[in-house]
Order: sequence, then C-alpha cells, then structure tokens
Amino acid sequence: MSLSSLDDLFVHFLRDIYYAEKQVLKALPRMARKADSEALREAFEAHREETEGQIANLEQVFEMLALKPRGVTCEAINGILEEGKEIMAEAADVDTCDVGMIAAAQAVEHYEITRYGTLVAWATQLGRPDAAKLLEANLKQEKAADAKLSTLAVEKLNREAA
Amino acid sequence: MSLSSLDDLFVHFLRDIYYAEKQVLKALPRMARKADSEALREAFEAHREETEGQIANLEQVFEMLALKPRGVTCEAINGILEEGKEIMAEAADVDTCDVGMIAAAQAVEHYEITRYGTLVAWATQLGRPDAAKLLEANLKQEKAADAKLSTLAVEKLNREAA
Repeated sequence: MSLSSLDDLFVHFLRDIYYAEKQVLKALPRMARKADSEALREAFEAHREETEGQIANLEQVFEMLALKPRGVTCEAINGILEEGKEIMAEAADVDTCDVGMIAAAQAVEHYEITRYGTLVAWATQLGRPDAAKLLEANLKQEKAADAKLSTLAVEKLNREAA
Repeated sequence: MSLSSLDDLFVHFLRDIYYAEKQVLKALPRMARKADSEALREAFEAHREETEGQIANLEQVFEMLALKPRGVTCEAINGILEEGKEIMAEAADVDTCDVGMIAAAQAVEHYEITRYGTLVAWATQLGRPDAAKLLEANLKQEKAADAKLSTLAVEKLNREAA
C-alpha cells in the first residue's frame, strides 16, 4: 500500500474494518456457544446479526466509492481476538469464562468504535455524508453493544457475589 | 496461565495492560519524532510522561496485591502498534502521516480505555477500592488523551482543507 492522501487513508481503514468485521462475524458464534449465561449468549447472537448488517453497510460504502469490497489483514483485531481465545481456553469454570469473554468482546467493540469514529470524521471531511451516515450507524451499534456488555458484566458479577 | 476466579482474571489483565503500557512507552518517542505538527508532537511527548505515571500506578497496584510487577505478552497492543508502524512507513507525506498516526494512537487509547474500564469494575467487585482508584486515574487520562487526539485530528484536517 502507499498512502498519499486522506482518500488513501480512508480506503485503507475501510478495508481494515471490513476485514475486522468479517473476523468478528466468525468469532461470535464460537463465543455464543461457549457462553453459560443465557443473556450473554443472546447478546452475542444479536450482535452477530448486527455485524452482518454492518458488513452490508461497509459494502455499500465501497460501492459508493466505486470500489470492490476487499479487506486487508488487520493485526489489531487478530491480536484482540487471539487474546479472547486464550481467555476462553484457560478459564477453568463457566463464570470466569463468561466474565472474561465479556471483557474480550468489549475490547473488540472499542477497536471498532475508534475505527468507525475516525472513518466518520474522514468521510465528512472528504465530502461524503452518504458514507458518513452508514459508518455512523455502525458506530452507534458498536457503542450500544459495548454499553450492553458493561451492563451484563455488572449483573453477572453481582449474581456471582450474591 | 489458569484462570479459575475473578482474582485470576484481574491479575492476568493487570499484567496485560502493564505490558501494553510499556510497549506504548517505547512507541511514543518514535511517533513524536515522526510528527510534523508541533501540537501533535507535544501531545505525544506529554502522553509519554503520563504513561510513565500510569506504569508507576500499575506498579502500586501490583504492590497492593503483594505481587511483583510483571507483564504478559499482549497480542492486542502488539497488533495495534504494528498497524501504526505500517501507517508511518507507508505514508507518502507528512500530513497523511500525522493524520494516520492520530488514528493509530486513538486505537491505542481505546484499547487502554476498555482494559482500564474492566479493571476498575473488577477491582471494585473484589473489594479493592484502593486499586480501583489508581486504575480509574489511568482511565481518566486515557479518555482525556483520546479526546485531545480527536481535537487535533479535526484541527489538522481543517487546516489541510483550508
């Protein structure tokens, strides 16, 4: 890759998050199967569906730019998901696993929040409010997913402590 | 590692963020040297100093738990920093590099925000308000650093557009 303008950066980060969302789409069913708490399983399943919609939004953005949807390897999401897998493998009981998976999933959400935040700002700057609107929709969903996970974490910890 | 309780998770994530902060401490001078905008260079330098304080806070938390400060490899931060290095290597001009570095640094901040958010919640749950207080201080600094970078990004992009 060669990055010589904001357009180049925008396309690079769009491909980065496209790759990331596809990896997340693969990881979520694994996490849902592993979840002991029903509420957590449902949250992972619901977010899997949302992720499909987000990927469709990204594909629309590619189309707006007359580009073929294509990902570039995102070492960040690979590292974040790898950490999540380790937690799942090393957790000795279902409660520890659930709490660890929530933290792992929140790291995923935060990565997506920062990337979408950047992409929305750049799309606006580049005079593409149509793209910004779709990216903003994804951003809002990721923020809501993160908030939901925070609530689930508190509920789970309080139940365990009780 | 074997994770069989919230205590285990807490210590694991504490080591994870300790490793992450040390990697960030190494990366920031490189980013400051590369920054074209004086405001951005100053922001990276100021955050380097903050990071030293954050590492000292983490060492205090280890001490509170009667543990030796020790990191564990954090694939997430390695991936995030690797992406930042790529952007710096591939950027063809100083403006593209500055804008790309801001986005890379914000991904770092968001990783730290999610980890500190989790650690504060767990420390509180574990009845360690002393540890929670120090982790909360780090969390606040990361949030402020992220907000500062957002402001710098907007200013930078507006100047370029003008």
